Amino acid sequence: MTVAVYPGSFDPATNGHIDIATRAAAIFDRVIVAIYDRPAKNLLFTTEERVDMMAKALAGLPNVAVHSFSGLVVDLARRSGAKVIVRGLRASADFEYEFEMALMNRKLAPEIEVVCLMTSVEYLFLSASLLKEVAVLGGSIHNMVPDHVASALRKKFLR
Amino acid sequence: MTVAVYPGSFDPATNGHIDIATRAAAIFDRVIVAIYDRPAKNLLFTTEERVDMMAKALAGLPNVAVHSFSGLVVDLARRSGAKVIVRGLRASADFEYEFEMALMNRKLAPEIEVVCLMTSVEYLFLSASLLKEVAVLGGSIHNMVPDHVASALRKKFLR
Amino acid sequence: MTVAVYPGSFDPATNGHIDIATRAAAIFDRVIVAIYDRPAKNLLFTTEERVDMMAKALAGLPNVAVHSFSGLVVDLARRSGAKVIVRGLRASADFEYEFEMALMNRKLAPEIEVVCLMTSVEYLFLSASLLKEVAVLGGSIHNMVPDHVASALRKKFLR
Amino acid sequence: MTVAVYPGSFDPATNGHIDIATRAAAIFDRVIVAIYDRPAKNLLFTTEERVDMMAKALAGLPNVAVHSFSGLVVDLARRSGAKVIVRGLRASADFEYEFEMALMNRKLAPEIEVVCLMTSVEYLFLSASLLKEVAVLGGSIHNMVPDHVASALRKKFLR
Amino acid sequence: MTVAVYPGSFDPATNGHIDIATRAAAIFDRVIVAIYDRPAKNLLFTTEERVDMMAKALAGLPNVAVHSFSGLVVDLARRSGAKVIVRGLRASADFEYEFEMALMNRKLAPEIEVVCLMTSVEYLFLSASLLKEVAVLGGSIHNMVPDHVASALRKKFLR
Amino acid sequence: MTVAVYPGSFDPATNGHIDIATRAAAIFDRVIVAIYDRPAKNLLFTTEERVDMMAKALAGLPNVAVHSFSGLVVDLARRSGAKVIVRGLRASADFEYEFEMALMNRKLAPEIEVVCLMTSVEYLFLSASLLKEVAVLGGSIHNMVPDHVASALRKKFLR
Repeated sequence: MTVAVYPGSFDPATNGHIDIATRAAAIFDRVIVAIYDRPAKNLLFTTEERVDMMAKALAGLPNVAVHSFSGLVVDLARRSGAKVIVRGLRASADFEYEFEMALMNRKLAPEIEVVCLMTSVEYLFLSASLLKEVAVLGGSIHNMVPDHVASALRKKFLR
Repeated sequence: MTVAVYPGSFDPATNGHIDIATRAAAIFDRVIVAIYDRPAKNLLFTTEERVDMMAKALAGLPNVAVHSFSGLVVDLARRSGAKVIVRGLRASADFEYEFEMALMNRKLAPEIEVVCLMTSVEYLFLSASLLKEVAVLGGSIHNMVPDHVASALRKKFLR
Repeated sequence: MTVAVYPGSFDPATNGHIDIATRAAAIFDRVIVAIYDRPAKNLLFTTEERVDMMAKALAGLPNVAVHSFSGLVVDLARRSGAKVIVRGLRASADFEYEFEMALMNRKLAPEIEVVCLMTSVEYLFLSASLLKEVAVLGGSIHNMVPDHVASALRKKFLR
Repeated sequence: MTVAVYPGSFDPATNGHIDIATRAAAIFDRVIVAIYDRPAKNLLFTTEERVDMMAKALAGLPNVAVHSFSGLVVDLARRSGAKVIVRGLRASADFEYEFEMALMNRKLAPEIEVVCLMTSVEYLFLSASLLKEVAVLGGSIHNMVPDHVASALRKKFLR
Repeated sequence: MTVAVYPGSFDPATNGHIDIATRAAAIFDRVIVAIYDRPAKNLLFTTEERVDMMAKALAGLPNVAVHSFSGLVVDLARRSGAKVIVRGLRASADFEYEFEMALMNRKLAPEIEVVCLMTSVEYLFLSASLLKEVAVLGGSIHNMVPDHVASALRKKFLR
Repeated sequence: MTVAVYPGSFDPATNGHIDIATRAAAIFDRVIVAIYDRPAKNLLFTTEERVDMMAKALAGLPNVAVHSFSGLVVDLARRSGAKVIVRGLRASADFEYEFEMALMNRKLAPEIEVVCLMTSVEYLFLSASLLKEVAVLGGSIHNMVPDHVASALRKKFLR
């Protein structure tokens, strides 16, 4: 049985993240979406909000669990019996960063495999930071996030 | 059960290819190494030679099979019940090409996932074409290919 | 009045090329699609066939003309009174090549501007060479080329 | 008539920005240089200063206007009757970011075209942030900005 | 006699930096490792600590000196009689940034040459910022820094 | 004393190549320009012609020699007592290829250093292959090659 960890900040979950998690769930036996438990300094949502939004978005997938975590991703993977870390690649600039991270992770834990999925073409432009920039300026984020995330974004920016 | 196809020309199998196949075999239930059956115009080895060298190199892995194929990789994947196509990424230039191929494959067969593994750092410089360039100029290819591949290369270039 | 030249081999015209030509026609007063008149060594279609297929695809755009040409693109632009050369960018690898070409063109003809349009996301995977590779292997090219181009491809590959 | 918007922070206007605006003015009927009206947290100059410096630099171009704006660029383009957003590309790293922005803009406003001009080779090294870094360390910024911008920079850094 | 400057923040010195300095010392007559004297806002170690750690790491190389500096690198090079600035390249993303810096430096001081060495493959994943991220999360940094740097990191993060 | 080898096809020598050789000669004690002695299949000029054109172009530099060679560059470097291989980088795409070559060369000869110089901005667009494309189409190659190379190109293309 192959367990995979899909780590990230997910501030908030976008349709791009949900797409990667869904596709990972189709090829691995179990997927743990692991949300960094960080002080909200540069983040819009609290850890609890980020976990809740992602959990709701992935509720229909029986082999996916959503948790927060702190520490190194490779340590979480080892504790969870995961052999795989999943990452989504959107473009070359992503690739450089992911490659460096993957090499570091292999140095720290050679038995854990980093596996990259290519972002679906309809979400290629969709990063969480660009999404928030558009939302705060009043742009339409239709088809970019689930409805419950869109509501949460509206609440944050109306405050 | 997740079956993965690892397609390529493998002219010849390098330690980099063998590393990717071995790592794919650790995370997927079955791996089919699929060798393009092409007329040898730009190739050094015949299809049969390339299959034999790869099969020998991967003989120790019970869940790996080596076959030649023609036609589209996605058609092979469908015929084989494979949900996954595995590709190794060595660097950004690889990434661009693989991304284009992956998008085309998703267009042709949306149900099949392209999964990229990062090349191990010790094989980063190792492409089959650069290997052949070094071998033909008399450079040492020690630690770059298995011994039986090194012998086959020597025979080709002594002719 | 700004006239633009959109040069290429267009072997054959894809929906990606047609999209760029259509969008150029929306922002410039006149667009000349300029098809390289090259000996067919590495090309599938003759110059005449490539011009005819593109002309048919763009017949609905009154401010677009399709011609073949030989020589330098900047010389064609000067002869045609064009101030602009249009290029479509699909990805970073394209960018590097286009950048080098654009710098050379500015050296040869500083008064002519190279303008790049970003490929629509649905044609990102679509190069003429990958299209032909898929077509020759029997893959579906639906939604990648106009119907008359698909027919022409089928005829070529059935011979 | 084709109106183009050229948006940016322009903190401050460099000869590279002025070159792009000038070249855009040669191929489009009207160009609006649109300067982000942002609180000066990470900026050196106020919005008013940035508008004034750019307006002075482009005073000789009758079909160019300089304004500040807030909100989304595509909304500004729509309000201004602009069909085109102009961006300057300096290198591959720029390209990745611009590509993501262009895809997002097309999603938000498919009728507006993002058009990229290649930076002139003599300004390839010239970003506003690197310029400020050089100026604050006392390096010569001769030929990198107009004289009135150089004076403004000296005043800021002497305070 | 060719003197080379190798500038950086070195916060802290990694085995990757030490490798580049050592290799530069093998091909140039004298190497000055020049450490930016910056207020420690985004830095973990003080200038003095960074100089001491680097000096200790390079103590065995008789033709290498370690100094702090402020101002432009090209001014330091001129003051030191250096004809060369050395930089280490880890990947394409590094390259873009280094290229921009190199072009700016040539504009400021055309007589000084920027020379890039390729990072050794075993340090490809090793940036000072990623190192600190791993160290703060309790990951092993064995083989990534000299022992005295590892001790210094532990002290910082235990406070 | 540091000897450097600058290898290439130089088909023909461009002002970009001459610039790199000249700058290498300023920082290393001796520079050997090493021209691949290859059958002229994909080359325009014979090995002898390429050596003669380069030698003439660099005649004013007393510490530079021009030779043809076959075999591996690292073997030539060893035979010549060279510690350094010099390469010119024009852009990111170059970088990827040069990085792979450099890693392979370090594997074959760890004691020899690959050193990259950044192409001068005025030759950024100038590759030997693009130059030949322009020349054959009758474009001006003024300022791109020395006069004797321009004459040689004209003779080739008039045949």
